[in-house]
Amino acid sequence: MLNRSELVLYTDSSPNGFKATIALEELGIPYTLHHVKVDQGENRSPEFLALNPYGRIPVLLDPQQGITLFESAAILLYLADKTGRLLAASGPARWDAIKWLMFHASSAGPILGQRVHFEMFAPEPYPPAIERYRRLSEDGFRTLDQQLASRDWLAGTDFSIADIATFGWMHIARIIHFDFSAFRHLTAWYERVDARPAVQRGISLPAPAIGP
Amino acid sequence: MLNRSELVLYTDSSPNGFKATIALEELGIPYTLHHVKVDQGENRSPEFLALNPYGRIPVLLDPQQGITLFESAAILLYLADKTGRLLAASGPARWDAIKWLMFHASSAGPILGQRVHFEMFAPEPYPPAIERYRRLSEDGFRTLDQQLASRDWLAGTDFSIADIATFGWMHIARIIHFDFSAFRHLTAWYERVDARPAVQRGISLPAPAIGP
Ligand SMILES: N[C@@H](CCC(=O)N[C@@H](CS)C(=O)NCC(=O)O)C(=O)O
Ligand SMILES: N[C@@H](CCC(=O)N[C@@H](CS)C(=O)NCC(=O)O)C(=O)O
Repeated sequence: MLNRSELVLYTDSSPNGFKATIALEELGIPYTLHHVKVDQGENRSPEFLALNPYGRIPVLLDPQQGITLFESAAILLYLADKTGRLLAASGPARWDAIKWLMFHASSAGPILGQRVHFEMFAPEPYPPAIERYRRLSEDGFRTLDQQLASRDWLAGTDFSIADIATFGWMHIARIIHFDFSAFRHLTAWYERVDARPAVQRGISLPAPAIGP
Repeated sequence: MLNRSELVLYTDSSPNGFKATIALEELGIPYTLHHVKVDQGENRSPEFLALNPYGRIPVLLDPQQGITLFESAAILLYLADKTGRLLAASGPARWDAIKWLMFHASSAGPILGQRVHFEMFAPEPYPPAIERYRRLSEDGFRTLDQQLASRDWLAGTDFSIADIATFGWMHIARIIHFDFSAFRHLTAWYERVDARPAVQRGISLPAPAIGP
């Protein structure tokens, strides 16, 4: 029976999808989970396009507030502000977390997405593009590694939505062998995030990701 | 003489840079402008890398609050929350604006950036990549066009930071002839934004963009 006060998540087992499931599991709030199978084109159905006209997961509904959200970074900001958790309410700690959330969402994440395309899905290998996205994703790894050299979490002393967003993608990076082991602070941070029970639940919903 | 209470912006004449100058001009708050000449490598100087280790503009400082921000979407969110303008304080209107801000920052904007690379800067033309980013950027234009078919601004009745972010890039798209004239709602919205005096000031700071 549908509980009208409950959040609803439409997602799949993918880098951007895991950001939403990890956040919901960390927060421990009830939600209904719908598995949208991208490999079966379910994200192009008229019902799904009515939620996100761009046809991408994740999508979060908060029926009681009349809110329909797509874009994983918007969903993370919404869940944090709704609950008052995983993001400081004000001051430099808040803006550090938002800065690193955006670094992931707008700089590092999209580059990893293009690297996946050219390394794994393009019909024929094109070395200059493979080279380009390797170089740019290593630049991103280096930037994160430097930030994590002197702090446990991306925004400082507290685990935040910036860590969740970044981990969502790095989890897939590890599965598909985009090697970042040379970046030892980033690797140590990865293990810290991976050790959290809610993160383990998040990356198994709606199902664990499958390797290449 | 440096006014310690004043905001400081480091930027260049570029898609992401104009988002910050347009917002500051719309808000009409005082700020100090530093022109970081990317074509002369000034974004790779040690002084600039201390502000943004990823070496990208724009960067905003709010010395009185002890805040250093990079990532244009983080800067827009900060300016809106600092002033209580260009973004609703709560409710669906706030989250619609953040959703479309993120759609630009994380989906449409990065795709336009890759299109620029393969159409304008790659040493040799590679048709499959040109084709890929044309198709994906048209998908983005179509999504925006659909959203703008029934509203004046991306988040509904009020001009917001979502319009500013999207316009920053569309202004460059027009200059470099990424044609979007077939999308008539998007084109009409473009003219509405372009007609705002503060937007005209924003796209001339630190200097107008130069065509291809
Ligand atoms: N910037 C978006 C990206 C969303 C996205 O690309 N989602 C992928 C799965 S990780 C998807 O739905 N792909 C389906 C498709 O491209 O057709 C976000 O952060 O939510
Ligand atoms: N996601 C970032 C992108 C910033 C970015 O790529 N800025 C460009 C200018 S539009 C830059 O600084 N490029 C210099 C370089 O790539 O070396 C944002 O929205 O601020």
